[in-house]
Amino acid sequence: MLKLFEYNWQVRKDWLDWCGTVNEEELMKRRTGGVGSILITLHHIVAVEYGWICGGIQGKSIEIPPFENVAGLQQIKDFSARCHLELAPFVYDWKDSLESRIMIDITDEGEREAHTYGEVMRHVIAHEIHHIGQLSVWSREIGKKPVTANLIGRGLFD
Amino acid sequence: MLKLFEYNWQVRKDWLDWCGTVNEEELMKRRTGGVGSILITLHHIVAVEYGWICGGIQGKSIEIPPFENVAGLQQIKDFSARCHLELAPFVYDWKDSLESRIMIDITDEGEREAHTYGEVMRHVIAHEIHHIGQLSVWSREIGKKPVTANLIGRGLFD
Repeated sequence: MLKLFEYNWQVRKDWLDWCGTVNEEELMKRRTGGVGSILITLHHIVAVEYGWICGGIQGKSIEIPPFENVAGLQQIKDFSARCHLELAPFVYDWKDSLESRIMIDITDEGEREAHTYGEVMRHVIAHEIHHIGQLSVWSREIGKKPVTANLIGRGLFD
Repeated sequence: MLKLFEYNWQVRKDWLDWCGTVNEEELMKRRTGGVGSILITLHHIVAVEYGWICGGIQGKSIEIPPFENVAGLQQIKDFSARCHLELAPFVYDWKDSLESRIMIDITDEGEREAHTYGEVMRHVIAHEIHHIGQLSVWSREIGKKPVTANLIGRGLFD
């Protein structure tokens, strides 16, 4: 479980660095598919990971700034770092015995849904990888090489 | 580990079904990013999973048809089904004790690289999710709703 989170965090860092090589207009530009722009996607990835792990599983009272309040590369980097600091200990302390514990989610429609921690953790993993795939298409539209998505060769298992 | 493979297989099936609702010209059309078209992406996903698990880890002598030889929706469905039948038992029989076993990969440049089975399996998982993210952008370009990427709500943990 941890390795896939570490993969996501590494890839996210690479994309945030990549964003530093692109002008902010391109980062903010509305695009087809996904949640609509490169920076909004990165905000969304951070918000979803933080929301499920700290707000959902850990049941903390959390505050997620709307994109408009952090709509710049440095602000998104700071938002990501802040959330990471708070949620990473839970991921590093993950034990198989947590797999089948249950959390209750209140959906946007106000319904209560039960999920195991194992399901939530994998949802968060897949969520980030999926949205990063969208960034890779948009980066080619800008004419730039995307960050590699390869998991092999990142030194995660050294 | 198994759950993320099951997620990928479900999502892949949903996309193959989705392809049935789109004309073949759109499926074959060259697009920006990724490996270049919807059908080539699906072929690539299957080939990479099959290549790493049956060819790489299991060391079987395998044959992967070039895209040109299976360049149609039904052929890609058949190719996916054939590979799945051969590789799924290994995934279902996965045990944590396999994590640190080593396989040797010969790269395209002829170099030998050692990888643990655990690294290869996670690489394959992330690889498919990433490319599916690209399909989701292209589907919006066609004006069609993409298959949901949500892992939660697929009944994988019922």
